Amino acid sequence: MAVARVTRLTAASPTSWQDAVQEAIGRANKTLRGLTGLEVVSQKAKIIDGEIAEYRVTIDVTFVLEG
Amino acid sequence: MAVARVTRLTAASPTSWQDAVQEAIGRANKTLRGLTGLEVVSQKAKIIDGEIAEYRVTIDVTFVLEG
Amino acid sequence: MAVARVTRLTAASPTSWQDAVQEAIGRANKTLRGLTGLEVVSQKAKIIDGEIAEYRVTIDVTFVLEG
Amino acid sequence: MAVARVTRLTAASPTSWQDAVQEAIGRANKTLRGLTGLEVVSQKAKIIDGEIAEYRVTIDVTFVLEG
Amino acid sequence: MAVARVTRLTAASPTSWQDAVQEAIGRANKTLRGLTGLEVVSQKAKIIDGEIAEYRVTIDVTFVLEG
Amino acid sequence: MAVARVTRLTAASPTSWQDAVQEAIGRANKTLRGLTGLEVVSQKAKIIDGEIAEYRVTIDVTFVLEG
Amino acid sequence: MAVARVTRLTAASPTSWQDAVQEAIGRANKTLRGLTGLEVVSQKAKIIDGEIAEYRVTIDVTFVLEG
Amino acid sequence: MAVARVTRLTAASPTSWQDAVQEAIGRANKTLRGLTGLEVVSQKAKIIDGEIAEYRVTIDVTFVLEG
Amino acid sequence: MAVARVTRLTAASPTSWQDAVQEAIGRANKTLRGLTGLEVVSQKAKIIDGEIAEYRVTIDVTFVLEG
Amino acid sequence: MAVARVTRLTAASPTSWQDAVQEAIGRANKTLRGLTGLEVVSQKAKIIDGEIAEYRVTIDVTFVLEG
Amino acid sequence: MAVARVTRLTAASPTSWQDAVQEAIGRANKTLRGLTGLEVVSQKAKIIDGEIAEYRVTIDVTFVLEG
Amino acid sequence: MAVARVTRLTAASPTSWQDAVQEAIGRANKTLRGLTGLEVVSQKAKIIDGEIAEYRVTIDVTFVLEG
Repeated sequence: MAVARVTRLTAASPTSWQDAVQEAIGRANKTLRGLTGLEVVSQKAKIIDGEIAEYRVTIDVTFVLEG
Repeated sequence: MAVARVTRLTAASPTSWQDAVQEAIGRANKTLRGLTGLEVVSQKAKIIDGEIAEYRVTIDVTFVLEG
Repeated sequence: MAVARVTRLTAASPTSWQDAVQEAIGRANKTLRGLTGLEVVSQKAKIIDGEIAEYRVTIDVTFVLEG
Repeated sequence: MAVARVTRLTAASPTSWQDAVQEAIGRANKTLRGLTGLEVVSQKAKIIDGEIAEYRVTIDVTFVLEG
Repeated sequence: MAVARVTRLTAASPTSWQDAVQEAIGRANKTLRGLTGLEVVSQKAKIIDGEIAEYRVTIDVTFVLEG
Repeated sequence: MAVARVTRLTAASPTSWQDAVQEAIGRANKTLRGLTGLEVVSQKAKIIDGEIAEYRVTIDVTFVLEG
Repeated sequence: MAVARVTRLTAASPTSWQDAVQEAIGRANKTLRGLTGLEVVSQKAKIIDGEIAEYRVTIDVTFVLEG
Repeated sequence: MAVARVTRLTAASPTSWQDAVQEAIGRANKTLRGLTGLEVVSQKAKIIDGEIAEYRVTIDVTFVLEG
Repeated sequence: MAVARVTRLTAASPTSWQDAVQEAIGRANKTLRGLTGLEVVSQKAKIIDGEIAEYRVTIDVTFVLEG
Repeated sequence: MAVARVTRLTAASPTSWQDAVQEAIGRANKTLRGLTGLEVVSQKAKIIDGEIAEYRVTIDVTFVLEG
Repeated sequence: MAVARVTRLTAASPTSWQDAVQEAIGRANKTLRGLTGLEVVSQKAKIIDGEIAEYRVTIDVTFVLEG
Repeated sequence: MAVARVTRLTAASPTSWQDAVQEAIGRANKTLRGLTGLEVVSQKAKIIDGEIAEYRVTIDVTFVLEG
């Protein structure tokens, strides 16, 4: 097993927490190579006019360090 | 930013944890003005006859205090 | 209330964390009688080629001990 | 299951922690309808002249919200 | 020191938390040999009509594994 | 010692965390009688243009319940 | 308020956890002046022949430092 | 990924914590099939005559459930 | 690096939490030699007549043991 | 809301913890664009000759990821 | 004291947890200048055929930020 | 079981964390009678020139109080 690094990300989605996680991974995949896993750290939401406007998630993402 | 208060709620849904959160927010919105956000504290479920009968959630809800 | 026991399980699903929880309960129900509830302990995911390949969940399952 | 709310209380008794919990519930029952459960958060004591003068308890009380 | 295992149990009593712990140990002793100790994990209670109807306890029980 | 209740508040100040705590207590004192103490739960800040624009604090406030 | 110090103690009783706490305070009072309070940190028990032989408690004791 | 179960074990060694972990795994392997991993929960030691007599470890062991 | 010891202290100040920490260190310095550092454990306050009367702090103080 | 990243920083100041936080933000602002917030993780201090020589703080800084 | 940053790493070794920590530091030293310290966050292991195949460690590494 | 006290110590070793623990116990044994056990609280290390220069450990030591 190579050495890996863990980075904390937050993201949001108007639909669901699971979708917010995918949002975070989609963005991480643009700049980080070797993503191997994630862990959900917190699930929050922003409320506007009595309704959930944004599902917000904080996750820890793991990616393998090259060479 | 005005002073806000945080209150803990629990709710349930036969469908999903996300639905149970919406249940809690729907109820909170009847009596609390100025809801701004929430955080999921725990996700549990009640099991009957080997199947999940109720998705139960505990959340912390934040609402702004007036004047 | 009878004495109950709590056991920790992990399971995975290609679809969602909620589905992974159902996977765990389905398996538990084969060998444990008297399941009454569960609590989500952690939500992780395995990433392959920049996409979530497996939603993984750890849960604590409670079941009543007979006699 | 209706939506419920969780409130934190502290109380004291010269006799025991269990008695302090009853003290808190007795008071809560005067103003809160629909009490369903409690959880002990901390057990402390005040000491005077080398003896325990007051058993103090902090509990989280749950009560169902009407309508 | 032999290898030991730790198992989580919950039990209830109409009288006290300490009695609920004894209830759990009495039941555990029927099926587990070699019990050596326990640790209290949580103390809760069920409230009916404004009074504590059941003292509920969660404990971790340790027992030595034979051979 | 009378039964007391604990409530969570958040507040902000452009100056300091200590000032944000005073802001919260000033507001609480308008509607809650019998305030006896507080505990700091978290200290955050909002950053705009590379500078701290708001010191935000979450506190638990205790107040004695009358009669 | 004078500066105070917090020290961790463990004690046991054949009767109850509350009695074990009193045991600890009785001993602390022999050598520490100015005891003002305590907090329960953990409640364990030793089991012999399927019965609780010793209720063991860990507490944090606070005492005021003189001059 | 099959459903797996997590069980807590404690073990001891006169030599080192790492050796105590191996002791626990050796014993677990006698009765549990499908061991896949472990996590160290706590590292303690027993002291006799001012020297460490036993390195004690608590671990969580994961094993895959068959069928 | 020599062996060091960590001791928990509490102190209060009418002015600020930072001042309360200095109060604790000033007192500790009278009887403990070799103080090297501290960590803030909690920040509380006593409220009288709706105003903060005392800023209270709990800290862990480290000091090197001689010889 | 764009995807954001959270990074942990430590900094020190001879004056106060609040100043140490500003020190950290000032440095972060040199290399990280899009800073939006921070949370205090720990407050420590270095003591020399019985006096606080350095207020040290650990914070989690959040910044929005571009594109 | 300069501003420093804390990064989380995971690494593995067939020999021991201490060796896995050295593995992580060796890799970190290739790309990060100014390493000053580390803290162990978790110690896990992968088991194959009833034996520990890989000691895995998660650590937080601190390094000073230049200029 | 007599009343016992728990004290927190830190120590370092150029060789290993286990050696650092022995260092702490060796020092504690000079001034404390009746040592019975210890628990590891944290494992850190100091890094110089990209190599671990000191393994540092924090432990809680228990010793029986006489008479």
